[in-house]
Amino acid sequence: MRQKTPAESETVKTEVVCPNDTNPMGILKGGRLVEWMDIAAAVCAQVHAEKICVTAAINSVAFYEAAGPGDVVTISARITRSFNTSMEIFVFALAKNILTGKSDLISEAYFTFVALDNGGKITKAIPVKPVTVSEKQYYEEAMNRKRKAAVIKNTVRELE
Amino acid sequence: MRQKTPAESETVKTEVVCPNDTNPMGILKGGRLVEWMDIAAAVCAQVHAEKICVTAAINSVAFYEAAGPGDVVTISARITRSFNTSMEIFVFALAKNILTGKSDLISEAYFTFVALDNGGKITKAIPVKPVTVSEKQYYEEAMNRKRKAAVIKNTVRELE
Amino acid sequence: MRQKTPAESETVKTEVVCPNDTNPMGILKGGRLVEWMDIAAAVCAQVHAEKICVTAAINSVAFYEAAGPGDVVTISARITRSFNTSMEIFVFALAKNILTGKSDLISEAYFTFVALDNGGKITKAIPVKPVTVSEKQYYEEAMNRKRKAAVIKNTVRELE
Amino acid sequence: MRQKTPAESETVKTEVVCPNDTNPMGILKGGRLVEWMDIAAAVCAQVHAEKICVTAAINSVAFYEAAGPGDVVTISARITRSFNTSMEIFVFALAKNILTGKSDLISEAYFTFVALDNGGKITKAIPVKPVTVSEKQYYEEAMNRKRKAAVIKNTVRELE
Amino acid sequence: MRQKTPAESETVKTEVVCPNDTNPMGILKGGRLVEWMDIAAAVCAQVHAEKICVTAAINSVAFYEAAGPGDVVTISARITRSFNTSMEIFVFALAKNILTGKSDLISEAYFTFVALDNGGKITKAIPVKPVTVSEKQYYEEAMNRKRKAAVIKNTVRELE
Amino acid sequence: MRQKTPAESETVKTEVVCPNDTNPMGILKGGRLVEWMDIAAAVCAQVHAEKICVTAAINSVAFYEAAGPGDVVTISARITRSFNTSMEIFVFALAKNILTGKSDLISEAYFTFVALDNGGKITKAIPVKPVTVSEKQYYEEAMNRKRKAAVIKNTVRELE
Repeated sequence: MRQKTPAESETVKTEVVCPNDTNPMGILKGGRLVEWMDIAAAVCAQVHAEKICVTAAINSVAFYEAAGPGDVVTISARITRSFNTSMEIFVFALAKNILTGKSDLISEAYFTFVALDNGGKITKAIPVKPVTVSEKQYYEEAMNRKRKAAVIKNTVRELE
Repeated sequence: MRQKTPAESETVKTEVVCPNDTNPMGILKGGRLVEWMDIAAAVCAQVHAEKICVTAAINSVAFYEAAGPGDVVTISARITRSFNTSMEIFVFALAKNILTGKSDLISEAYFTFVALDNGGKITKAIPVKPVTVSEKQYYEEAMNRKRKAAVIKNTVRELE
Repeated sequence: MRQKTPAESETVKTEVVCPNDTNPMGILKGGRLVEWMDIAAAVCAQVHAEKICVTAAINSVAFYEAAGPGDVVTISARITRSFNTSMEIFVFALAKNILTGKSDLISEAYFTFVALDNGGKITKAIPVKPVTVSEKQYYEEAMNRKRKAAVIKNTVRELE
Repeated sequence: MRQKTPAESETVKTEVVCPNDTNPMGILKGGRLVEWMDIAAAVCAQVHAEKICVTAAINSVAFYEAAGPGDVVTISARITRSFNTSMEIFVFALAKNILTGKSDLISEAYFTFVALDNGGKITKAIPVKPVTVSEKQYYEEAMNRKRKAAVIKNTVRELE
Repeated sequence: MRQKTPAESETVKTEVVCPNDTNPMGILKGGRLVEWMDIAAAVCAQVHAEKICVTAAINSVAFYEAAGPGDVVTISARITRSFNTSMEIFVFALAKNILTGKSDLISEAYFTFVALDNGGKITKAIPVKPVTVSEKQYYEEAMNRKRKAAVIKNTVRELE
Repeated sequence: MRQKTPAESETVKTEVVCPNDTNPMGILKGGRLVEWMDIAAAVCAQVHAEKICVTAAINSVAFYEAAGPGDVVTISARITRSFNTSMEIFVFALAKNILTGKSDLISEAYFTFVALDNGGKITKAIPVKPVTVSEKQYYEEAMNRKRKAAVIKNTVRELE
């Protein structure tokens, strides 16, 4: 079966933090950043899969540093591995201060996407062929991450 | 020290899925839903903490069902437990089809927030006092979820 | 004919005031608040009617206090009474300052909605069965409000 | 005291109905139209008052016809009369179908604005000098509309 | 063949500069202003053509003065001339400071639009009949502007 | 004086065409695309200048192909040359259809930016050092483009 490298679908999305993207202390809101990361990850998954893809899970999102208004946020999304029907996409975001030129890693996240056929059914995923040392490491570790990502079983009824 | 119950800060946010919130197959985008959940969770954390709060991590987001244009999405956010400086917020989202009246659980997620003082420094969190059986269960399990949420150590340099 | 109580369709919508929602003096714009109220009222009408609903009129909107950036605005919409084909929805909005915890009633409004069938035709409304003392009072007064809401007869031609 | 004519502050705002402005039946949402009308009315009030103005009340909004995606909506706002500290602004909206060229009056509304000084205090309003026959008629009728606009006294406490 | 005057399709669009429309120095972003101008120009072209129109080119956009938050931006679009299948639309924007009442010309631009039939094919343009001295001057000069607007031949391949 | 290469500030911005970005025929609106291009160009100029930059002119925008909902639009911005206080940024946009994998050049544009110091004054531009054959060609041709970009002299008064 045909394989594709991570480089074939790598996606870069540049945004500038605007006032509405920040909380009252002037810090980029986490949910807004995740929305941008999800778009980059979805483009990455769709270019890899050559099909419409939907987010099946967001396995973890870590926030390391704060970004503020005017900062340039560069989001990179790269596929790490495909499983039977799912694709793991690794996304990270850098924020650059224009005046100082300083760039910080502000967030990293793992998304799981599935590809849909024309009828909206989930389809088999195209395998990933890692090339660089780093890509091979991400590929190997993806299996561990998949095992740990236990589905959350709590239902709404239990909460109430 | 003063404690507060989860009910004191429970937050409900109702949205209607619009065309721009969906992908080309007409399915609500995961990142858009997480942005809404993050706002509800931030309000919940801020009402509990009586301070500006920021997202420290999103520990997991599960997507169960698809929502489409016109569906009414009801997002509920409730604090489960405070640790020294962090608060875990549980968020779930229901989508209701207006014509059929059918309501589905579409997503569940755990957010971690920290509260900031006026100078932007992280402050101690107000403890949570669980009252109902369900609240006590979420409270107990929060410790396990915290242990499992290993910080993602991969750096950008490793990727390249 | 089947009746439904106001509680069955009560709708709560939480928003946080962002910079673009305010005027140059930092006050939440009236039109933006009405847009949020209209969404909450539309959801309330649609859940009651189990059909797509459209705004037929906004009978009055009073603004009592100003809200500013970062304030949490909680909008509640409740159906008061149905007439032959129309439904009156009462909406009020509270603004809470996170740091002081103080909550103010900022606006109240009455909306009139009509339900549409699949062909876009206006349909008969499901009657409202008021239960609490307050609901019965709103129900009774709805007839007075309906009488007063004289249709504005001025036409564009008269203006020019 | 200096007077100004309605023509000096007349404001026209053209919008095109986009998919997110419509409900699931493809009809322009009432709340979205009111948001546009409020911006036009605020500009009109501010140009008349030469000060920042805020919406004090929306006295009535009537919706006559539906507009759909692609329709050109032209909103006109004109001041009718000033009272001691308030200004009444009349707003109407026309929707034009590009292909048929047909234009319909879709909505009319009366807004009440007050002007703020630099400290945020409400200031005296500049009187309106009506010139045309139509402007004089709107000016005379404004007193009646003001009398009828009884302030809604219901409080949130009464509802609960 | 039927001709139409520029006055028949003149379009005015009023906007208020909001925080998200500005860069970190509080100056209205050029791209945001062009987006508003394009909407006004598209409405103008569509009202003239009585068909859906798309932007074929933006021939030049000059920015003269800066606008800031709260400024009222008034955009006017007027057709200058039709060629075989294309229409030239002249757009200018004024920014008014509410407190000083001062109004500045902030931008001028020339857009080229083409009209599409129901199948999406480009159609012949309705001729423009200039009436005023100014309209005749714009009409005459349109031919010069068309000649100068040499199509940019550089391709992506040459860049890489 | 210090020089910088075009590669040091190249900026890539990925967007997905959503329903609100299109006209009623489902074609990406020109003004929306220019807004995205302006953001990419502004980031490019700011990273090159290490200062806040504002758009001084958009010299020409050509639209070659139409993009539709769901298409992935990749915008690339690269500085071609600096003059005394201005920088020319070349921007092009590709649209990729996910299902066919086909990618089209949809638009090219030249923007002129100036950098501002902390007081908002225009500053001298950092020279560009072209490296590749293509970069040298763009550098040489920039002088011609600058000469041709005659400032539009028509004033609003002439129009009226």
